[in-house]
Amino acid sequence: MTGPDHDPGARSPEFVQSLERGLAVIRAFDKERRSLTLSDVARETGLSRASARRFLHTLVELGYVATDGREFTLRPALLDLGYAYLSSLTLPEIALPHLHELSEEVGESSSVAVLDGADIVYVARVATHRIMSAAIRVGTRFPAHATSMGRVLLAHAQPAAVDAYLASTTLTALTSRTITRPRDLRTVLGQVRGQGWAVVDQELEEGLRSVAAPLRDGTGRVVAAVNVSAPVRRGAITEILEHLLPPLLKAAAAIESDLARMR
Amino acid sequence: MTGPDHDPGARSPEFVQSLERGLAVIRAFDKERRSLTLSDVARETGLSRASARRFLHTLVELGYVATDGREFTLRPALLDLGYAYLSSLTLPEIALPHLHELSEEVGESSSVAVLDGADIVYVARVATHRIMSAAIRVGTRFPAHATSMGRVLLAHAQPAAVDAYLASTTLTALTSRTITRPRDLRTVLGQVRGQGWAVVDQELEEGLRSVAAPLRDGTGRVVAAVNVSAPVRRGAITEILEHLLPPLLKAAAAIESDLARMR
Repeated sequence: MTGPDHDPGARSPEFVQSLERGLAVIRAFDKERRSLTLSDVARETGLSRASARRFLHTLVELGYVATDGREFTLRPALLDLGYAYLSSLTLPEIALPHLHELSEEVGESSSVAVLDGADIVYVARVATHRIMSAAIRVGTRFPAHATSMGRVLLAHAQPAAVDAYLASTTLTALTSRTITRPRDLRTVLGQVRGQGWAVVDQELEEGLRSVAAPLRDGTGRVVAAVNVSAPVRRGAITEILEHLLPPLLKAAAAIESDLARMR
Repeated sequence: MTGPDHDPGARSPEFVQSLERGLAVIRAFDKERRSLTLSDVARETGLSRASARRFLHTLVELGYVATDGREFTLRPALLDLGYAYLSSLTLPEIALPHLHELSEEVGESSSVAVLDGADIVYVARVATHRIMSAAIRVGTRFPAHATSMGRVLLAHAQPAAVDAYLASTTLTALTSRTITRPRDLRTVLGQVRGQGWAVVDQELEEGLRSVAAPLRDGTGRVVAAVNVSAPVRRGAITEILEHLLPPLLKAAAAIESDLARMR
């Protein structure tokens, strides 16, 4: 759930370890570790104190880390690195106006996500109000199997990729309703592929439902998914399918039409 | 506007150049350069082809870059680096529910930003509809002098920091209304400090107005700014001050009260 795999056994001879270590220093900071001392960073990363100091001071010199001499904190310039990824995508820019329109029409939050390993990652989002316990933003990850967008993306992935995914991923139960058996997930993915959309009923979080549709690029390849989520108090599943699915499919078609024009 | 300063003349002996170069490879990608060959990256970064190859393949092995053998593209795992910064902040998490409430009340987009050099950087945002030509998201930068949040942040910065800012920054005219004379900006900053909020009328973009207030942490230090923006068609400046400013100041007070509780 925290990003790329690390398998130091399989490094090529050209591998630049300093880059790996510097990025690991950045990732040592998070919600529970907002401000770290040199010793903290050494402990979190497994680096020696001398190495940790070199990387921290390099990041300070580059403007990515701030320090008062003892404690180190991250600086907003780091957002530029994630921003480099977002800027390199045509999709969020193309999708956002359609998400705004969709969210305005149905009065619920809408998002676009891509698949990264076993996770979906949000790349665009319009939030109308907060309904989940965790704040969702661009960059947020969730396990693909428990989300409507993840199911859409897995349903349209290469069969070999789905086999590898199921072989390497534990389908964790996030609520009592989460599908956790690979067999059951395969059945659902087949349905999703056939019907062209996925609905998830409180499998990611109690009280939350979501419906998603695939987004195809100009070559017909599914490159992302778009969804609308709604609190259970909005009504039954049939309510969601009646009132949210048609606007969602309309928005997906509009995004795809804009994407095709970009080729 | 694109992040930290690079001044290779002033490097400490402990500086890890590989880290700087690896980060420069990531930053070679952007909206105009979504997909780059090895030669493109070498040219953009000034690295030799051999070096560029080593950094690119290291980033591929770490899961931050994808390649088809010829073209390289960034991968969503990069968002984790920016996300590390956001997660390390208490503020966005605390501010978001209040921004949702504020945007719902006034029907306009609201945001929180911090100062980074001569720019403001968005760290939280609730968008009701898109009114600017550029899509604003977390990580977006604008020149501080032309924005209401920038003026609030400059108004409460240390006098020495403001002197350094004015000495090193060209106050570019983004519209015909942008304040571009340091003298005039100083005068406005004095007003902002006195009245406790800033309003900007089409200085960042034609047709767009914005009003901002400071956010203080539990020690009384201004750590960020919160704003509401509105299209000109919403009405005169007096309209904004009458209908948007009171809810904005109420939201700022609520965020500050939550922030103080976090100490």
